[in-house]
Amino acid sequence: MQIIYGIRALSEAMAAGKTIEKVLVKKGTAGALIKELLEDLKTANVHYQHAHPDRFLRYQNKNHQGVVAYISDIIYQDILDIVQQTFEKGEDPLVLVCDGITDVRNFGAIARSAACMGAHAILIPDKNSAEVNSDAIKTSAGALNSMPVCKTTNLARTIKSLKAAGLTIVAATEKGDKKVWQLALDMPMALVMGSESDGVSSDILKMCDELATIPISGNIASLNVSVSAGILLYEISRQREK
Amino acid sequence: MQIIYGIRALSEAMAAGKTIEKVLVKKGTAGALIKELLEDLKTANVHYQHAHPDRFLRYQNKNHQGVVAYISDIIYQDILDIVQQTFEKGEDPLVLVCDGITDVRNFGAIARSAACMGAHAILIPDKNSAEVNSDAIKTSAGALNSMPVCKTTNLARTIKSLKAAGLTIVAATEKGDKKVWQLALDMPMALVMGSESDGVSSDILKMCDELATIPISGNIASLNVSVSAGILLYEISRQREK
Repeated sequence: MQIIYGIRALSEAMAAGKTIEKVLVKKGTAGALIKELLEDLKTANVHYQHAHPDRFLRYQNKNHQGVVAYISDIIYQDILDIVQQTFEKGEDPLVLVCDGITDVRNFGAIARSAACMGAHAILIPDKNSAEVNSDAIKTSAGALNSMPVCKTTNLARTIKSLKAAGLTIVAATEKGDKKVWQLALDMPMALVMGSESDGVSSDILKMCDELATIPISGNIASLNVSVSAGILLYEISRQREK
Repeated sequence: MQIIYGIRALSEAMAAGKTIEKVLVKKGTAGALIKELLEDLKTANVHYQHAHPDRFLRYQNKNHQGVVAYISDIIYQDILDIVQQTFEKGEDPLVLVCDGITDVRNFGAIARSAACMGAHAILIPDKNSAEVNSDAIKTSAGALNSMPVCKTTNLARTIKSLKAAGLTIVAATEKGDKKVWQLALDMPMALVMGSESDGVSSDILKMCDELATIPISGNIASLNVSVSAGILLYEISRQREK
């Protein structure tokens, strides 16, 4: 985590697309610049809080103008670069794709499992996805600080590129006709998880090479998505090691 | 969910060991009886809130004395009865034991997976366990309304009884020397999950027949406990179906 000081530094960080985890604004700070900044923060959905001037004592050597911001260390990377680097290392890429997972805790929990199970990157669309904020990082047990996160403006197109790069695309879905353990999952792969309410979106589902279904019984309709992701990642690990 | 009215009805429900999810106390209600009740609620760690008299309008036909309580439908059952009934049905019992899982959301998520994966009951100690409250039920996607929950005052003794009844006791632990998929998990079984911070307690660990470890890599120390539970339940399902 990096700390930046002052209105201008924060505006620049936002313009550069950095992930701003928290902003402290000193109580009593006034003026047109700060007013504009607060409006920008609201527009960008960045969380800020007014803090007692005492909390700024430790920053007194900095020219903070009443504003201190905490910036996430997360650096968004290019998914095709990572896939290529993984192949070059002699490993089979494993990419976890979150298609419409907007719940921050589910997203964080999925990242934690992905890191534990040897996934090489997480791919998310830049819209309709959980914010990679401090809650997500906390739920991920820190995994989001080390696991490469890749954003795409067009998920379908990026998945097409992953296919072209040699990855098998596997969707976790209740609509599949094969049980997870009946599928071969020991090749270069992108695993697509969908939202709890709607599952993997239909245009993505059409592009997938395999539909993996975790068999369930009883009167509960489905597993939690982070549990499903953990199970699929486990099955991939199990098959890769055999 | 059941609603009960009045001080005496609530006291009786508490004495009968019912799970009280929420208590509303009409603002301005006074007297020795209500004072005593509130103290009992505090002692029993039951959540109550003072509510505006308007909220009691809908209960005006009831003799509520300023107190309305919501009672959970959960009926605690005897674990040995369930095990016996399961054997009699010709099925292999699968009991999920939560040893010190105090996080309500983790507990709820585990119950959801257990219901989806065909577990017959959840066994919890009466102390040092998450409350089976409305948050737990919500996170369980309703599983806690149908899955039998069994409480024990002495977890070690109950596990001993389960062993005597023919169940293999398997603990999920990072301390095992066998990978989950190297273990045979297709017999009558109790699966013990421990707390996120401390794992399965040492006295219980000693009683277990097998220690199952989910192999992980990378710099994150462990999986979330509800994800681990989901993976183990999946592996049990997989082996049972083969």
